[in-house]
Amino acid sequence: MIAPGATIGILGGGQLGRMLALAAAELGFDTHIFTPEDDSAAARVAARATIAPYEDEAALAAFAAAVDVVTFEFENVPARTAQLLEAGRAPVRPNAAALALAQDRLVEKQIFRDLGVATAPFAAVDDDAGLAAALTTIGAPAILKTRRLGYDGKGQARIADPAAAGAAFALLGRAPAILEGVIDFEREISVIGARALDGGFAVYDVCENIHRGGILAITRVPAAISEESAARAIQTAKNLMDRLDYVGVLTVEFFVLAGGALIANEFAPRVHNSGHWTSDACVTSQFEQHIRAIAGWPLGDAARLADIEMINLIGADVEQWRAFAAERNAHVRLYGKREARAGRKMGHVTRLLRH
Amino acid sequence: MIAPGATIGILGGGQLGRMLALAAAELGFDTHIFTPEDDSAAARVAARATIAPYEDEAALAAFAAAVDVVTFEFENVPARTAQLLEAGRAPVRPNAAALALAQDRLVEKQIFRDLGVATAPFAAVDDDAGLAAALTTIGAPAILKTRRLGYDGKGQARIADPAAAGAAFALLGRAPAILEGVIDFEREISVIGARALDGGFAVYDVCENIHRGGILAITRVPAAISEESAARAIQTAKNLMDRLDYVGVLTVEFFVLAGGALIANEFAPRVHNSGHWTSDACVTSQFEQHIRAIAGWPLGDAARLADIEMINLIGADVEQWRAFAAERNAHVRLYGKREARAGRKMGHVTRLLRH
Repeated sequence: MIAPGATIGILGGGQLGRMLALAAAELGFDTHIFTPEDDSAAARVAARATIAPYEDEAALAAFAAAVDVVTFEFENVPARTAQLLEAGRAPVRPNAAALALAQDRLVEKQIFRDLGVATAPFAAVDDDAGLAAALTTIGAPAILKTRRLGYDGKGQARIADPAAAGAAFALLGRAPAILEGVIDFEREISVIGARALDGGFAVYDVCENIHRGGILAITRVPAAISEESAARAIQTAKNLMDRLDYVGVLTVEFFVLAGGALIANEFAPRVHNSGHWTSDACVTSQFEQHIRAIAGWPLGDAARLADIEMINLIGADVEQWRAFAAERNAHVRLYGKREARAGRKMGHVTRLLRH
Repeated sequence: MIAPGATIGILGGGQLGRMLALAAAELGFDTHIFTPEDDSAAARVAARATIAPYEDEAALAAFAAAVDVVTFEFENVPARTAQLLEAGRAPVRPNAAALALAQDRLVEKQIFRDLGVATAPFAAVDDDAGLAAALTTIGAPAILKTRRLGYDGKGQARIADPAAAGAAFALLGRAPAILEGVIDFEREISVIGARALDGGFAVYDVCENIHRGGILAITRVPAAISEESAARAIQTAKNLMDRLDYVGVLTVEFFVLAGGALIANEFAPRVHNSGHWTSDACVTSQFEQHIRAIAGWPLGDAARLADIEMINLIGADVEQWRAFAAERNAHVRLYGKREARAGRKMGHVTRLLRH
């Protein structure tokens, strides 16, 4: 067990890094943020910060030598960066291999299939011929997604008509892609689980998510799904984490069909926006849970004490902070970002609905 | 209302400053800690820190110019320091006058009397003649306390036998003191209230406290007292805050006699150890409540969602962190202090008892 007083190294300076750093501080840890961003949200609550590009090998080596464990607020870490960190003195949790798998939508889908979980129909698209073949198999409408670096609806283009396929591919810069069939789902859910160093598993209640413009807008817990669907979703998350020899918090997103069947969509090897409610409705938040796991501590209690909803404050939504601050029974959480750009996650609000 | 993105200045680098800084960060504020202590617990979670003596006038002026509001984690701020801060651009909340009153046990007792609240019998002691006179009035056993700079049982000496009074006075360095009669109380309670800039008031459920060696050991909520006693305690706290034109969180400690009568003991113009449970059982913690108040925000919801107990980890108690980390339903909170000296508050644990 990594003892209080040790330093947790976190790659990434955004709101997830900030909330991880706050949770680490509550357990008596120091944090050290590594980020290319000057004046980042996370660095302003950390004991130390290294401001350098993720490709700066000297800075990475110094960072790895200065901390007792390394973790991440996001999965799109260059493979070389993760390798350099793993060559350091401090353990890297979750492991770099798990990050690498989550970076590639095609590999992600193949893992779900290997685990016996349904996915949307998909096919790899590397060139125009591959795109034509994929459209023949999958049909339109379909969604073309870059294999790498997609999040919050970025790197995606909908193909309603096969005639427009070439334009969609061009829009994505003709990067290696995956064509996915469109799923007629009833709702979207996510499972946030944690796996300890000794293989121990804890999971939060399944979350129901509403996206707008490809970005999470609202999460409600409990999700309006059957116990059977919830149990299958949770088992999938556990199987995935066991398979990856995972340490930390991991999130799996699913579509739920009208009959209750599950379609695995993607996973994120990290704490997740759809788990922010855990800070306000659970004994152990997803952030503390992740810190406990990577520090080799036993996992905390993931039991939910209240029904709750979370509303994301995106871009100019943050201007509503005064109204939310005046609302009874609401938690306002703001991330300290300097500029409220469109589509940028600026904060969130949770409302206890029943307890 | 001071908007998110502004900087909260906090005097003091201990655990209360740390927890205030963490709460401020959750609302999107930056924090700037002023403390003479190098590598302090609070500075390691703050955006900025000034490390300078409280008497460093240039450092205080620069600090006051760099922040948007000034507050305190403790009341024993030199009067000159508070005056210098009040001369700065940023408002000082709570006001320096309230701090000054709380620094003097004699003044504190007189305020309680002015508010019509019972206190232990007391008399000022400035010299040997005064001590003899006080002992004649109050009788032995009694407790001699320095008027200033007392906390956690420091600056106190019990006088069991009038013959030993001179030795007790010498032990306290013959500093201006107050002799207090010993109260035969049934239990100790505290009330943690908050007053907003517009006079709005919020209060947490009354806490029951168990001290050991003059230091808080355990807090349990709810307190085992009558509704009537609780209502009177709360009304006293409100009256005191109104009288001081107070902004922020303030704590009043009482003794409860066997019949339910209240004896006001002392007040602290700040967040308080006996309120740490609010972070885990309330929508709004005492730390967030204080930040809301000093930022001119509406007060948050102080409703309690669970029965709870808090156990202080003092000195070597902190070595038990592994056992507490493995306990279901418990929150472990450690303060990041480097050295576990005897009597030093190193962390605390809360246990949800019923929810």
